[in-house]
Amino acid sequence: MRDKTLERLHQLGWQLPTPPAPLGAYRAVVEAGSMLHISMQGPVSAGKPALTGLLGREVSIEAGREAARLSLLNTLAQAFRHLGSLDHIRQVVRLDAYVACEESFINHPQVIDSASELLVQVFAERAGHVRTVCGVRNLPGNLPVGLALVLKLQRQPA
Amino acid sequence: MRDKTLERLHQLGWQLPTPPAPLGAYRAVVEAGSMLHISMQGPVSAGKPALTGLLGREVSIEAGREAARLSLLNTLAQAFRHLGSLDHIRQVVRLDAYVACEESFINHPQVIDSASELLVQVFAERAGHVRTVCGVRNLPGNLPVGLALVLKLQRQPA
Amino acid sequence: MRDKTLERLHQLGWQLPTPPAPLGAYRAVVEAGSMLHISMQGPVSAGKPALTGLLGREVSIEAGREAARLSLLNTLAQAFRHLGSLDHIRQVVRLDAYVACEESFINHPQVIDSASELLVQVFAERAGHVRTVCGVRNLPGNLPVGLALVLKLQRQPA
Repeated sequence: MRDKTLERLHQLGWQLPTPPAPLGAYRAVVEAGSMLHISMQGPVSAGKPALTGLLGREVSIEAGREAARLSLLNTLAQAFRHLGSLDHIRQVVRLDAYVACEESFINHPQVIDSASELLVQVFAERAGHVRTVCGVRNLPGNLPVGLALVLKLQRQPA
Repeated sequence: MRDKTLERLHQLGWQLPTPPAPLGAYRAVVEAGSMLHISMQGPVSAGKPALTGLLGREVSIEAGREAARLSLLNTLAQAFRHLGSLDHIRQVVRLDAYVACEESFINHPQVIDSASELLVQVFAERAGHVRTVCGVRNLPGNLPVGLALVLKLQRQPA
Repeated sequence: MRDKTLERLHQLGWQLPTPPAPLGAYRAVVEAGSMLHISMQGPVSAGKPALTGLLGREVSIEAGREAARLSLLNTLAQAFRHLGSLDHIRQVVRLDAYVACEESFINHPQVIDSASELLVQVFAERAGHVRTVCGVRNLPGNLPVGLALVLKLQRQPA
């Protein structure tokens, strides 16, 4: 069966990475009712950080935007592995975003918007999500960005 | 039709501000099932920060409390614009609060409580909410406070 | 009636503490639909902080792990007081964790995993939860750890 959402992702030039393993005794995804919760994902590639450091110091805005995109792709990869098809996603509900940064850094929205923009490109009218963004002191493994997504599903819960 | 909740807000001496526009490719509110999620709101007034800086440095506790109240009023303004009436809110479920502060600042609850107290005054027995509060390094646009609310609705989802 | 989940907790050598009172005008728990939200809990014992300070400075990883366990036990104590039995918990859905730390500290998962591991020991196949973890500047009352849990319930909502 076709996965039109995944096709759109591919047409945009993106691929789903191998979803990173959890860093402890929790799960990558949990389905509860019609909602899919996904654990915080960072810019990890092939099991290793693709980028480390703080926005406003080692990490430029453009690098931070790439990190947010990779974090989102990891998130969608987790959802895909659980659901079997991104078409089962009815709506992106919520994005909680964490940016590790210097005290003087205040352009968090610009960094995280690369993820929100990709959601709009891939999910179109199903992309609408609320967002929280805060600048934290640091993140696990010195990652610069962490994203946690909540999705509403089309299908009935198991 | 009367909006008794909004009337109570007015009786308390408060007005709903013009709800701020999102800072990127996301939505101010998303309705999912019987829950309304609202994007993080800060002390923004007429499209501009009403206050910037860190608690424990430039921002006093009393100024932080005003900032939290304004953030809450912006949040309720977003809900009102979406729902058409605050009476459609059955219960305030969850308040996630972010306080940008100096390392030595530890009175976050006192700052955020101005928002919780206003919820109690306006929603009475419908105000009961759980709360998370943390002290972050900074917030978008150097805002001192950010609030994200989840509401349970009376009406059926669309 | 037996509470098999609580019995397992006791068999593991743990007791539920007296659940701490909220620090303001909010509630310890809110039930919405089939979900139970619990306010952020820290390592508080008998109304006082059991531990204060930052990971990477005053607080060692092992002390942080004890703080995370105590925070989780306080969380479960809140749930127990509301539900009357931990058996009513169908699944742990979500754990949002905040670690107050030095800028150079990056072992947050190791600290928070003591809570996730205890969830697995107590709830077994019902323990599966998604997790967010971030390193914040500080937490209310200078607590080193804060945990916020969302649970799915077996019983129908009131």
